[in-house]
Amino acid sequence: MPLAEIITIGDEILIGQITDTNSPWIATELNKIGISVKQITSVSDQKEHILEALAEAEKRADIILITGGLGPTKDDVTKKTMATYFGSKMMVVHQPTLDIVSGFFTKRNLPLTELNALQAEVPDNCEVLLNENGTAPCMLFQKGRKVFISMPGVPFEMMSLMTSKVLPELSKRYQLPSIYHRTILTAGIGESFLADKVADIENALPSYIKLAYLPKLGMVRLRLSTAGNADEALIAEVEHFAGQIEERVPEYWVSNEDVAFEKAILDLMERNKLTLSLAESCTGGYLSHLFTQHAGSSTVFDGGAVTYSNKLKMSVLGVKAETLEQYGAVSEQTAREMAEGAQRNFQTDFAIAVTGIAGPGGGSEEKPVGTVWIAVAGKAETVAKQFIFSNKRLQNIERSAMAALFMLLTLLRKSHYN
Amino acid sequence: MPLAEIITIGDEILIGQITDTNSPWIATELNKIGISVKQITSVSDQKEHILEALAEAEKRADIILITGGLGPTKDDVTKKTMATYFGSKMMVVHQPTLDIVSGFFTKRNLPLTELNALQAEVPDNCEVLLNENGTAPCMLFQKGRKVFISMPGVPFEMMSLMTSKVLPELSKRYQLPSIYHRTILTAGIGESFLADKVADIENALPSYIKLAYLPKLGMVRLRLSTAGNADEALIAEVEHFAGQIEERVPEYWVSNEDVAFEKAILDLMERNKLTLSLAESCTGGYLSHLFTQHAGSSTVFDGGAVTYSNKLKMSVLGVKAETLEQYGAVSEQTAREMAEGAQRNFQTDFAIAVTGIAGPGGGSEEKPVGTVWIAVAGKAETVAKQFIFSNKRLQNIERSAMAALFMLLTLLRKSHYN
Repeated sequence: MPLAEIITIGDEILIGQITDTNSPWIATELNKIGISVKQITSVSDQKEHILEALAEAEKRADIILITGGLGPTKDDVTKKTMATYFGSKMMVVHQPTLDIVSGFFTKRNLPLTELNALQAEVPDNCEVLLNENGTAPCMLFQKGRKVFISMPGVPFEMMSLMTSKVLPELSKRYQLPSIYHRTILTAGIGESFLADKVADIENALPSYIKLAYLPKLGMVRLRLSTAGNADEALIAEVEHFAGQIEERVPEYWVSNEDVAFEKAILDLMERNKLTLSLAESCTGGYLSHLFTQHAGSSTVFDGGAVTYSNKLKMSVLGVKAETLEQYGAVSEQTAREMAEGAQRNFQTDFAIAVTGIAGPGGGSEEKPVGTVWIAVAGKAETVAKQFIFSNKRLQNIERSAMAALFMLLTLLRKSHYN
Repeated sequence: MPLAEIITIGDEILIGQITDTNSPWIATELNKIGISVKQITSVSDQKEHILEALAEAEKRADIILITGGLGPTKDDVTKKTMATYFGSKMMVVHQPTLDIVSGFFTKRNLPLTELNALQAEVPDNCEVLLNENGTAPCMLFQKGRKVFISMPGVPFEMMSLMTSKVLPELSKRYQLPSIYHRTILTAGIGESFLADKVADIENALPSYIKLAYLPKLGMVRLRLSTAGNADEALIAEVEHFAGQIEERVPEYWVSNEDVAFEKAILDLMERNKLTLSLAESCTGGYLSHLFTQHAGSSTVFDGGAVTYSNKLKMSVLGVKAETLEQYGAVSEQTAREMAEGAQRNFQTDFAIAVTGIAGPGGGSEEKPVGTVWIAVAGKAETVAKQFIFSNKRLQNIERSAMAALFMLLTLLRKSHYN
């Protein structure tokens, strides 16, 4: 199994200005096709330092993937350093890249500066994997049996290149095992409790089937993977164990697909021709964003209201002034009226309402920061539940959203939608 | 100036299961006190690999900070490896740590297992920096002039140790320069165009003042930093250059603070006692979420509507059926009616409306995917503008949001709010 190393280039990571989210994404994708990541290294924009990192990575790994350090303001340090490292004789214009660079500026009615045109130049001894979404080229260098690929650091350019060019290229060059992965998406149960529940199944797994727990806020992804090449019999065996796990925790099971929680719900609601609206207070649009980031969400999701103020809770959702006065904005009664108001005013089959104290301010002894009421209005009933989360604002927003999704899923299932 | 290297230990980073957010945080804190981070390295849980990383880091850096690889489930691999690397003779019980570990279990009415008690054992030749928030000890090893500090990987334990123990310890051991950083936040202009505009100022910078471009979607952060100790005269010099840059691009200048774009706007609106509401179609709640993730946003932000369907555009925002019919949902007229509808119905001083085709479906020849109309309703006028972004849904959402923020800021400034 080939080993990879990921090198990210850029002072902005070393000064803590940005978090390197490229590397975990790349690592995930490599693992899926059977390439292990040995090390992830972040180095500065200095040529000497990059040369040292390349040499060390070459000792450790077969495949070295590099991101960042490209573009005019970076002085294309990665490109120049790669040229040095691989002993390139000169820089040559890569016409397809130049066409893209020129087109990029023409489309925006901007002049093509000399600096930008330079981006289309690459070392003579590299192979270019065409970057169709940006102006920095993706360069592949072969050194003996080792492969070095340099990509731009802009996440969507890197992701697009990885998916359409780099991964297929690596699959072509290496005899990669066809690893079979089977995901079981769960929600509403913590990792250690889930592990307890399926302990005997896990213990019975043969050595060539691995079970990984991949927890995320409010969810746990279980992943069964074959250790090596998967034939039909082995796939059937993985499916057998997956089925056992699913039967063990039906109330927490969300999906077999490795999709986001809200996407699993959108798919379920679309299959059943159901519509959804939202009434968000403390989640402040986050839940809407979760749904609407998915293409096609408009089939299910009609819209919603972000009602931060009491004024809007009343005028947009029809929450009664007496309810707010008597029970407060963060209460079961308000949550129920918000959900039912959204369902009624926005004319949808289901509606979720979230109201709480995200913090850090606004808490009281009776209702501390982290207190959240969630209501889901369905066709036959409205359910409501209180949660006490943490004192961290963003965490409260995310955990509220996950809890709301789980309540919606549970009510959908209870209403016999599958 | 001392150099640091950060080593994170744990397979979960290498398989892409978790994103390393510890390192950027540590890097930021080190930079603030004048310690540069030379490299960030993520290695596996294997002893040999960790030993190799320690040896390489020792060659490069003066200070090596290590996180992760501690605790019973990790088999305390970091502790054992450090003992090997530094030639410890034996493990000894660190009584204050044992007291904390015991207390931790007593408080939860759990028995102290042998495995847990082992956590209080440390190599005989380390100095313990007491971890008051967890059971894994923080260990400092001195080797010649180099300092190695191992911390647990749990973010809040690490952060607390860094703040209360590690940073003071490093400040005591090194003569640290007081580095001065000055941020200039810009929006509405690309990195290379900005670089062109301030090229002469950048070229005139003395060698002891560095300018960094830190681009983010729709924004560019400029940061001037002193290379070494900053006295009053040097700070004045940095401020002089910062002022020159700001004067050069007043229309793109957002803030001097290193804050998120929407936070700069919230602060500006709060200073001027202004309120804001939103009418989001294609951004689907993302813009609301940007604002509401910030504590205290409710002072400015009253709420808004996510009107995905035409039905809701009419019922919630009062967009006229004729407008939708005649011009379509993605049009200047609809955007203006949405913004003015939000401003009127939600009773706020300013309102933003975004309507567009986020994609990947829904485009036409006349209005391709990526077509977005944004309107901002202010006190004296409503401005509207069309954008043609890309064919990538998430990017269209984010770029629409950034463009909307820039339009709002521009209208606020035009209305003499500062």
